[in-house]
Amino acid sequence: MTHVRPSGRMPEQLRAVSLQRGYTRHAEGSVLVSFGDTRVLCTASVDNKVPGFLRGKGEGWVTAEYGMLPRATHSRSDREASRGKQGGRTLEIQRLIGRALRACVDRTALGERTITLDCDVLQADGGTRTAAITGAYVALVDAVRWLQSRKEITRDPIHGAVAAVSVGLWRGAPVLDLDYAEDSACDTDMNVVMNDGGGFIEVQGTAEGHAFRRAELDALLGLAESGIAQLFALQREALASK
Amino acid sequence: MTHVRPSGRMPEQLRAVSLQRGYTRHAEGSVLVSFGDTRVLCTASVDNKVPGFLRGKGEGWVTAEYGMLPRATHSRSDREASRGKQGGRTLEIQRLIGRALRACVDRTALGERTITLDCDVLQADGGTRTAAITGAYVALVDAVRWLQSRKEITRDPIHGAVAAVSVGLWRGAPVLDLDYAEDSACDTDMNVVMNDGGGFIEVQGTAEGHAFRRAELDALLGLAESGIAQLFALQREALASK
Amino acid sequence: MTHVRPSGRMPEQLRAVSLQRGYTRHAEGSVLVSFGDTRVLCTASVDNKVPGFLRGKGEGWVTAEYGMLPRATHSRSDREASRGKQGGRTLEIQRLIGRALRACVDRTALGERTITLDCDVLQADGGTRTAAITGAYVALVDAVRWLQSRKEITRDPIHGAVAAVSVGLWRGAPVLDLDYAEDSACDTDMNVVMNDGGGFIEVQGTAEGHAFRRAELDALLGLAESGIAQLFALQREALASK
Amino acid sequence: MTHVRPSGRMPEQLRAVSLQRGYTRHAEGSVLVSFGDTRVLCTASVDNKVPGFLRGKGEGWVTAEYGMLPRATHSRSDREASRGKQGGRTLEIQRLIGRALRACVDRTALGERTITLDCDVLQADGGTRTAAITGAYVALVDAVRWLQSRKEITRDPIHGAVAAVSVGLWRGAPVLDLDYAEDSACDTDMNVVMNDGGGFIEVQGTAEGHAFRRAELDALLGLAESGIAQLFALQREALASK
Amino acid sequence: MTHVRPSGRMPEQLRAVSLQRGYTRHAEGSVLVSFGDTRVLCTASVDNKVPGFLRGKGEGWVTAEYGMLPRATHSRSDREASRGKQGGRTLEIQRLIGRALRACVDRTALGERTITLDCDVLQADGGTRTAAITGAYVALVDAVRWLQSRKEITRDPIHGAVAAVSVGLWRGAPVLDLDYAEDSACDTDMNVVMNDGGGFIEVQGTAEGHAFRRAELDALLGLAESGIAQLFALQREALASK
Amino acid sequence: MTHVRPSGRMPEQLRAVSLQRGYTRHAEGSVLVSFGDTRVLCTASVDNKVPGFLRGKGEGWVTAEYGMLPRATHSRSDREASRGKQGGRTLEIQRLIGRALRACVDRTALGERTITLDCDVLQADGGTRTAAITGAYVALVDAVRWLQSRKEITRDPIHGAVAAVSVGLWRGAPVLDLDYAEDSACDTDMNVVMNDGGGFIEVQGTAEGHAFRRAELDALLGLAESGIAQLFALQREALASK
Repeated sequence: MTHVRPSGRMPEQLRAVSLQRGYTRHAEGSVLVSFGDTRVLCTASVDNKVPGFLRGKGEGWVTAEYGMLPRATHSRSDREASRGKQGGRTLEIQRLIGRALRACVDRTALGERTITLDCDVLQADGGTRTAAITGAYVALVDAVRWLQSRKEITRDPIHGAVAAVSVGLWRGAPVLDLDYAEDSACDTDMNVVMNDGGGFIEVQGTAEGHAFRRAELDALLGLAESGIAQLFALQREALASK
Repeated sequence: MTHVRPSGRMPEQLRAVSLQRGYTRHAEGSVLVSFGDTRVLCTASVDNKVPGFLRGKGEGWVTAEYGMLPRATHSRSDREASRGKQGGRTLEIQRLIGRALRACVDRTALGERTITLDCDVLQADGGTRTAAITGAYVALVDAVRWLQSRKEITRDPIHGAVAAVSVGLWRGAPVLDLDYAEDSACDTDMNVVMNDGGGFIEVQGTAEGHAFRRAELDALLGLAESGIAQLFALQREALASK
Repeated sequence: MTHVRPSGRMPEQLRAVSLQRGYTRHAEGSVLVSFGDTRVLCTASVDNKVPGFLRGKGEGWVTAEYGMLPRATHSRSDREASRGKQGGRTLEIQRLIGRALRACVDRTALGERTITLDCDVLQADGGTRTAAITGAYVALVDAVRWLQSRKEITRDPIHGAVAAVSVGLWRGAPVLDLDYAEDSACDTDMNVVMNDGGGFIEVQGTAEGHAFRRAELDALLGLAESGIAQLFALQREALASK
Repeated sequence: MTHVRPSGRMPEQLRAVSLQRGYTRHAEGSVLVSFGDTRVLCTASVDNKVPGFLRGKGEGWVTAEYGMLPRATHSRSDREASRGKQGGRTLEIQRLIGRALRACVDRTALGERTITLDCDVLQADGGTRTAAITGAYVALVDAVRWLQSRKEITRDPIHGAVAAVSVGLWRGAPVLDLDYAEDSACDTDMNVVMNDGGGFIEVQGTAEGHAFRRAELDALLGLAESGIAQLFALQREALASK
Repeated sequence: MTHVRPSGRMPEQLRAVSLQRGYTRHAEGSVLVSFGDTRVLCTASVDNKVPGFLRGKGEGWVTAEYGMLPRATHSRSDREASRGKQGGRTLEIQRLIGRALRACVDRTALGERTITLDCDVLQADGGTRTAAITGAYVALVDAVRWLQSRKEITRDPIHGAVAAVSVGLWRGAPVLDLDYAEDSACDTDMNVVMNDGGGFIEVQGTAEGHAFRRAELDALLGLAESGIAQLFALQREALASK
Repeated sequence: MTHVRPSGRMPEQLRAVSLQRGYTRHAEGSVLVSFGDTRVLCTASVDNKVPGFLRGKGEGWVTAEYGMLPRATHSRSDREASRGKQGGRTLEIQRLIGRALRACVDRTALGERTITLDCDVLQADGGTRTAAITGAYVALVDAVRWLQSRKEITRDPIHGAVAAVSVGLWRGAPVLDLDYAEDSACDTDMNVVMNDGGGFIEVQGTAEGHAFRRAELDALLGLAESGIAQLFALQREALASK
């Protein structure tokens, strides 16, 4: 017997996803990504400098920072700027976003510049890190196009696309793209990042309750593959417009 | 001879102002306020606790925090959470917002609870603190209405309205509601907070270039009074809808 | 009916003000300023470097830091060095002092050097920031004279004088130079910084209780103008001695 | 064609693993775990308190902290205590260790007490986090036995065992238990945490170079399963002695 | 052959020492101590609380904090509040002052209250920590007298006096009470804290250049004994006045 | 009448001392020093840079850092990296270790390089700082020999040896090398650092209970001299092996 998901979605159904380009004016790329009620503002900022460890090597850098507005969540959480440090969860997520996006960038073609992807959660309803990766990719492409339009780079440093989705075991069954109601009650939560060549960039699965079996893991990976394929289509569509 | 303002506005003309209530879902009050291209998300969060210095006194508290997304501005600024502390400008602004909003609240009627106003700048184009105060007032009223609808408070703790605007001397002439182009080039910058009874709550004028004369100060205060009167009308209109 | 001020002073009467130059030995300028029982040690330190944002521009910099000894006040407050950060009030005050003093300095004439004004409150009885500005001006002039005596600068970078005073509404009436007893009980508190050409450099008025009317604001500014005129005379006198 | 591993090990071969109990005297559990040249001191400390969010719920807590001595590595790294904060990598690893160990603990049977697992790397040669998990499990069991020997708990809160190993694609081939030479040159690095019932607790795979295919992922998981089975045997043997 | 000291003092001669009680108004004890050009403001603040580790034990606490105004020294040093932490030297000195003063206090007679000794250096010319201890003792006695005058304590918690002086080997010869010119050029620097019963509370000798011989150590201790005897006389005289 | 020491040792008897060279692999010098149950890992790391204040002067630097694993002690103490700062005791000890070791180094012969001595306490039972100094000396010599073996330096920068021991008054009698049981119950605790030419580098004596008399101080220094002589023999023996 299958349980009906809190949202009424089918197990293999994504939430409504939107990618709104040009959401703010100043950034070289600026995308508001929504996975249902989860809304993340992703901006890409170009800086003509690289961190110290890369200086003089002719390579660029792509990095990410992640934040959550204090009242993006059900109850208000402390402002990290006010507490004086970023928590472990924040650091873990922004390291993940950075690694994920670097996986589709030819850093030599980018040249000695840094693109910083700021992913700020305006409203949280589960899956903020996977929404952030999916949206940040679009912001990154816009920033690269901006560089190309100004002839600052000649070779396209973007190879392939990157997107991410969460999957999990909810009441024993594999489901795609967990919202908060599912996320807080699921047994296993897995975040999967892939490129559009079918390769895995990152797989992070955690048993929250019971440990998961190998067969369950296989089912979850299958769901993620199908969900991410849809996200690639939505990214292409968003980038084709305007 | 008068100079034409960069935006083409008349000296006594506000930018287009909008107050969008219910912008996010979780907060008891949530308002996106725009003064032209300046956009600030103001949320009001209710907590049934008060800071230590008020415990057991039967009074509530209203406080504010202010933040700016790293790429809200022309060039990216460091994330305060990552630098590990809030800068002096941030602290100064959030202290101002808190004082301004407390000026219209009967803290005994509020009872032993805290309302925190988070003002986060999504996009900056001058006047973020005055937009924040004007928007936070509407979020505060929504949070109080939420308390009233749940019968948690009986007496209305809000007395009067609070709004704010900037004025300044730009190329020698007094102008209302400076945008970034004017703000970065003006001689004097003044932020004025008033209540709708015509009283001043805060006046902060700073000579950036030449010191200002008493007559100039008088002209600026007159401009601010007329601008704030318009903001009160917009707040009332926003609160009347829905 | 007028109330008698706690100190017995007339509404328009300053406290006894003294400016003791050469209070400590090492600094290029060192002034102990007293406004009644408020005592602030202001030192001016010359450094042949400028902050990064000014390097190579041929301009100097004037900046201020403010501190309060832990037991300068009625009850002991935590040492900011021990708490690990400066509070919002401290940052706000030191930003104000820096802006105020820069308003009388030709930074090109100063050349690529920084003058740091350290204002440390030995004893507090209200008005520490206005005493600090008034005293720091004298320390600044002494530091500039020291540079001139060593022929390190040729053109005098000081144009005009800067002084500051607080005014407020105490029991409904405007009074000059609030001491702690008045400050903690007043309705409106305003700090005014002027130059000796009659121009305003900074006006910061805050309604602590009831909002203030335009006429009250006007009366306060008049009081401040007269009080600051007396402070300029005292600064000139102090600088003429020795 | 297969490449010979730098260490000369077979692809499916663990390094020499040792688990030395009672390495230090004060802690309730104290284990020096070695995976080849990687040596981690794991201590388990019992405290009769729980964090605030668990107070009064009758449940215990298991948490971990991770550190690396400054010269555990090839070149000296800064001491985190001296830099004033723990880096993102440290926080990420200690969160992982804590989650992994909590997965085998019945927190109600533990009662309102906290067991803190301190994992300090004395010497690093790759795989410090998986060694830490494997060793911390033994220290945890020793601390629980200590509680049992003092009759402080009656029911055994440990259900099953937990161990971890890394696997990766090195020169295209899946290998088990990467040392530093392999880790720094591999394409994909995956850390796997399992329980001795064959369930997965955590799977974290990262493509450092090329994205990995589904078949490669499957091969890596198989290697991890066999390696972890050996670690369970070593844990049992260590716990059986004395 | 003996060298003449930079100050012209005899080897066994103290600098001019003064102890000015009641230097500031708010503190229960407030002493400006001068050892020549070294000037330290020592305040004693009484608080009716004790640190957590003493709560409910019926004992009081005496502790110290030390600070140096940024321009107390020849060249300006960073403000510790602004750097965000107290340096090792500061922590070391304030721990020493606290230990030294606790050595003459019967903490049971003091009852559950804390006396905090803030020692802030207004001007530094060597020997700030020994001046601080010598002055803080007088401030401590004044605070205790204040408690006695209010009948808050009945038994005198002060047993004996505490004072401190530095001694050192300058150009090979033992000298008393080093000033900055000597301190920065001496081979060995020793700080000695004693009580007026002839007992040693703390001896801290450091070879800056050549290691010192046992005979030199003996000579230094003899000098310190005679210097501290003079300081006790000055403390008694200061406390007898008014 | 004499009391028997908790350990049964004679008053002038050291604990069993061992110096295990090459304890870890990566550092240029790595020594595990044990004074009874006190075990400190001392590593010496060579870096071809010097701190800013020495740059370009042709001199090297020797510095130390000290840490204690959280469960090195009877009850677990907070991790300093997690608390975000090193405590006063830590800073005081590492400053002492650095000064002590610099006393036997010709920094010109060392050339522009820094040797950092990391002293991390694996298990504490009193006397960690004296064990650290004694062990760090051996690690330092090993690092220098490594530099010599690579011909990076020609002249031996080490002149003489440095070792340290604690002495104290326990139940009225002078005893050598206090362990924790004695340390926590003694009246006076003194740490003595000497070189092998019989010179004193540092003497730090603190009266924990009653002040100590001059004759007691003399007896303690005598004990320390004899104990340190034995430590020099052990250092020589350790360095002669291999």
